[in-house]
Amino acid sequence: MFEKLKNLKTYEAGKPIELVVREYGIKPGEIIKLASNENPYGPSPKVIEKVKKNAHLMHRYPDDSFYELKEKLAKIHGVDKKNIIIGAGSDQVIEFAVHAISPKKVLTAGITFAMYEIYSKQVGAEILKTPSAKHSLNEFYEIYKKEKPEIIFLCVPNNPLGECIDAKDVFDFIEKIDEETLILIDGAYQEFASYKDKSKEIKTKDILKYKNVIYTGTFSKAYGLGGMRVGYGISNEYIISNLHKLRPPFNITILSQIAASEALEDSEWVDMGIENNFKEMQKYIDFAKKKGFEYIESYTNFIVIYIPESTKIANKLLKKGIIVRDMASYGFDALRITIGKPEENDKVLKTLREIS
Amino acid sequence: MFEKLKNLKTYEAGKPIELVVREYGIKPGEIIKLASNENPYGPSPKVIEKVKKNAHLMHRYPDDSFYELKEKLAKIHGVDKKNIIIGAGSDQVIEFAVHAISPKKVLTAGITFAMYEIYSKQVGAEILKTPSAKHSLNEFYEIYKKEKPEIIFLCVPNNPLGECIDAKDVFDFIEKIDEETLILIDGAYQEFASYKDKSKEIKTKDILKYKNVIYTGTFSKAYGLGGMRVGYGISNEYIISNLHKLRPPFNITILSQIAASEALEDSEWVDMGIENNFKEMQKYIDFAKKKGFEYIESYTNFIVIYIPESTKIANKLLKKGIIVRDMASYGFDALRITIGKPEENDKVLKTLREIS
Repeated sequence: MFEKLKNLKTYEAGKPIELVVREYGIKPGEIIKLASNENPYGPSPKVIEKVKKNAHLMHRYPDDSFYELKEKLAKIHGVDKKNIIIGAGSDQVIEFAVHAISPKKVLTAGITFAMYEIYSKQVGAEILKTPSAKHSLNEFYEIYKKEKPEIIFLCVPNNPLGECIDAKDVFDFIEKIDEETLILIDGAYQEFASYKDKSKEIKTKDILKYKNVIYTGTFSKAYGLGGMRVGYGISNEYIISNLHKLRPPFNITILSQIAASEALEDSEWVDMGIENNFKEMQKYIDFAKKKGFEYIESYTNFIVIYIPESTKIANKLLKKGIIVRDMASYGFDALRITIGKPEENDKVLKTLREIS
Repeated sequence: MFEKLKNLKTYEAGKPIELVVREYGIKPGEIIKLASNENPYGPSPKVIEKVKKNAHLMHRYPDDSFYELKEKLAKIHGVDKKNIIIGAGSDQVIEFAVHAISPKKVLTAGITFAMYEIYSKQVGAEILKTPSAKHSLNEFYEIYKKEKPEIIFLCVPNNPLGECIDAKDVFDFIEKIDEETLILIDGAYQEFASYKDKSKEIKTKDILKYKNVIYTGTFSKAYGLGGMRVGYGISNEYIISNLHKLRPPFNITILSQIAASEALEDSEWVDMGIENNFKEMQKYIDFAKKKGFEYIESYTNFIVIYIPESTKIANKLLKKGIIVRDMASYGFDALRITIGKPEENDKVLKTLREIS
């Protein structure tokens, strides 16, 4: 019955807090989870208030036209509502794109966001990866010329490594690619990258000039709404209207829609989170430098540090109630640590100094 | 780029309240929306409280193993957690099933839940329908023998008509179907049907005996959580583990998971809603009888009444701020009206008496 699924694996998410609680007997309040690049400050207090005020509406289906949310997003990005599709996380927009094209081949960086591969395998695509782990647009182009993949995924900046290619290089690259190949620019961490360095900023409006480019954004990171599953795609009307054919009705919850819409009203809160992120990230950089550990310069809300025997270190941290991402599964002797709140980072760094 | 989508249409949801507000200048508070089979009583107050208390967790990804929710569902249904998959509405479980099999042909009742057809068309399947609008298992069997569809959808009870085949007939039917054909039993309104008539109750535990049957349930109707998008599938471990390969991580929100789990704790609230539903439905039956209008006996939270010139009537209702579903698009001169709260039904019936 399920012939076509025989090469697919089930996705396993990171260890939830509940599991650590059960396994090590650590109180939930004492656990520090810096493994999933969640925004440690959460959403704006105004968003929390608004959701509480509307919690009695949970029996109502959401506005399936996303009138208000799209209106606000369109204004911010300088595009029309018709250039926007809403997804349950930007993940779902990626899913629409992959399923809409059903590519034979797709092309990604050596190490990048796992969902590109997961969705592409669902439609039986071959996954081509650049030899380099980080994004090398030269390598992308060489493979593109030879293999002509139908989708190219650029993660700008890249999760789980944190590096970021320049916006100018992205657009130069786009110019060289035939219109038969869709280029998906995943901007899940763009708010962080463009804050740190303007040359990383992808101007979404400029995407519309191209027949074959889509940008995806999310409320999960800078806006602190990871658990509410709201993302979006921005592209020309032709692409967006086609992806809409695959969007199931009511694909985000009524409270998610209310939360995302309200989150766009409090840019100060978002800026505060991003500013603190890089201030706190410096503590990890200082630690790495002092220890003589290599790290990847990060344009996101996490940092990858090459800590010898990372698996052992990750396990030691876990027993102390600190959850980070071990990069061993990627063949890296390194940890990916989400930048937490000051007190969380201080505790993590204190522990790391003791055990690494 | 989107060759395979050329025969697909974009789904258009029913008129949202916002549209009526804009078009007819009626105050949002005065609009009565009985078009989408939402639970007029909403979720249990305990659910609302719990969601408010946890609204500050919106930045956290949900437990992707659904530990607590599955534990409770398993207990209620007398199955193991491994027999359960969680979806963003039962819609998504239907999507998993269709995409997992990629059928060439599927079989449904003449008029039934639109998503069977929408998802099936996405994978290019031919949609076979019984000549009768309502479920006729004889017709299903005749077409099955001739056409050998890979999926058969039974909507028990049926949306949007409201009729319900007996559970015994469903199981007799299953026995006659080869194991190569998946039978999907959509129980979105089962709580209503089994309350009204025990002979309609699908015992989910009995599903597990079969290699090729899956049951889908939802929190959108009896539990009053339509806007939160939580549903589930129950089947044998083989089917469930295969569908899990297509489930994206974090496919329901953290607040949806909390809400659904809490909703299972307040069965009194659910029973109250169902009891009132049938009490209030009687008012519509009395109205139809008095007017000499035919109606379909309903095992759900809505009723289909054949009201002459239904489109005209629906528009007249709309101008008075009452939204119901006109069945003209199905070729029926009838309205489908969701059973609302007493005061809503009284107002709708008063208006209907005047204009029909």
